[in-house]
Amino acid sequence: MKSHTNYLWFETKARRDLVNVTDEVEGTVRKSGVQEGLCLVSAMHITAAIWVNDNESGLWQDFWEWLEGLAPFKADYRHHRTGEDNGDAHLKRSLVHHQVVLPVTAGRLDLGPWEQVFYAEFDGQRRKRVVVKVIGE
Amino acid sequence: MKSHTNYLWFETKARRDLVNVTDEVEGTVRKSGVQEGLCLVSAMHITAAIWVNDNESGLWQDFWEWLEGLAPFKADYRHHRTGEDNGDAHLKRSLVHHQVVLPVTAGRLDLGPWEQVFYAEFDGQRRKRVVVKVIGE
Amino acid sequence: MKSHTNYLWFETKARRDLVNVTDEVEGTVRKSGVQEGLCLVSAMHITAAIWVNDNESGLWQDFWEWLEGLAPFKADYRHHRTGEDNGDAHLKRSLVHHQVVLPVTAGRLDLGPWEQVFYAEFDGQRRKRVVVKVIGE
Repeated sequence: MKSHTNYLWFETKARRDLVNVTDEVEGTVRKSGVQEGLCLVSAMHITAAIWVNDNESGLWQDFWEWLEGLAPFKADYRHHRTGEDNGDAHLKRSLVHHQVVLPVTAGRLDLGPWEQVFYAEFDGQRRKRVVVKVIGE
Repeated sequence: MKSHTNYLWFETKARRDLVNVTDEVEGTVRKSGVQEGLCLVSAMHITAAIWVNDNESGLWQDFWEWLEGLAPFKADYRHHRTGEDNGDAHLKRSLVHHQVVLPVTAGRLDLGPWEQVFYAEFDGQRRKRVVVKVIGE
Repeated sequence: MKSHTNYLWFETKARRDLVNVTDEVEGTVRKSGVQEGLCLVSAMHITAAIWVNDNESGLWQDFWEWLEGLAPFKADYRHHRTGEDNGDAHLKRSLVHHQVVLPVTAGRLDLGPWEQVFYAEFDGQRRKRVVVKVIGE
């Protein structure tokens, strides 16, 4: 069995952002030498998520509006008694889910025709990590 | 390490549908010869999901009503400027999550007593795929 | 390839509860002898979930209020015609997602600085299981 671990670092300029990481994940798979296996992509900070969806800017705006409706930024989360103001970011991560497992087939990410992998940042402007771990052979 | 990959094809008659795929996934595991490992089941189209829950038709109706409330079908998604009308389907996939990883123990899916695996179609009536990938030994 | 499977049992006193299982999962990883691999943690009952987030009690209260708003406990779910009263628990599981895959690196759970693993019980006061499966080498 082979395994390979890579950490992607992010420091987004905006507080909320989507970053397409498909090429970086694909590069990690190539480097691993794994032909058949699984590739975990997981946000290590609890105010970010991984989202596999369409590379279409209109949809991204729909996604943000929808998230804001279901897990709104607001002042009165109990979590804010700790001095934080990012309660909404914890809930947005819970809604979207913070990770995906991608199949690796014939040495490549085995994605659907429109599947792209996004890092979803809900509380950015500081350095945060995503772990990419490939196992297989 | 062994690995085996299978693609399940769907073309549902209804636009929205739940299809129980437990037997097909179990068949893929058997074919793989894997005794101990993991089985990824992932919807490759970005308007479908995988749902592990109860084989009970009342719950399915609750599930659909609930999804429609939280990610409603409506005209004015920005994504529709591309000519699509399935913005809700992208969001429903995000809510339910598009994939699961099932444990394989002693050559079988290691599911709980009422766990069944469903393909959740949010924009059907055309051919779409799910990847099933088993790794282990 | 090595693999190791463990089942965690729960019987919470409260109907809804969060149980920090990070240490038990870490113990399972240690016992597996796996140095590099993946660890699946999955709730086997369809009214429970796994949540990776902050070990902060204010956030837990925010989490419960938020879940109750989006998937409320109420009498009139169709699922209740079966005699059950836990329709909300099935939906809460769907929202949070019922499982996570944790990376194992150098023989340890490779978690972010504040990531903790919680069993989220939505219909407790009876014995229920979580499967923990580690594969790797």
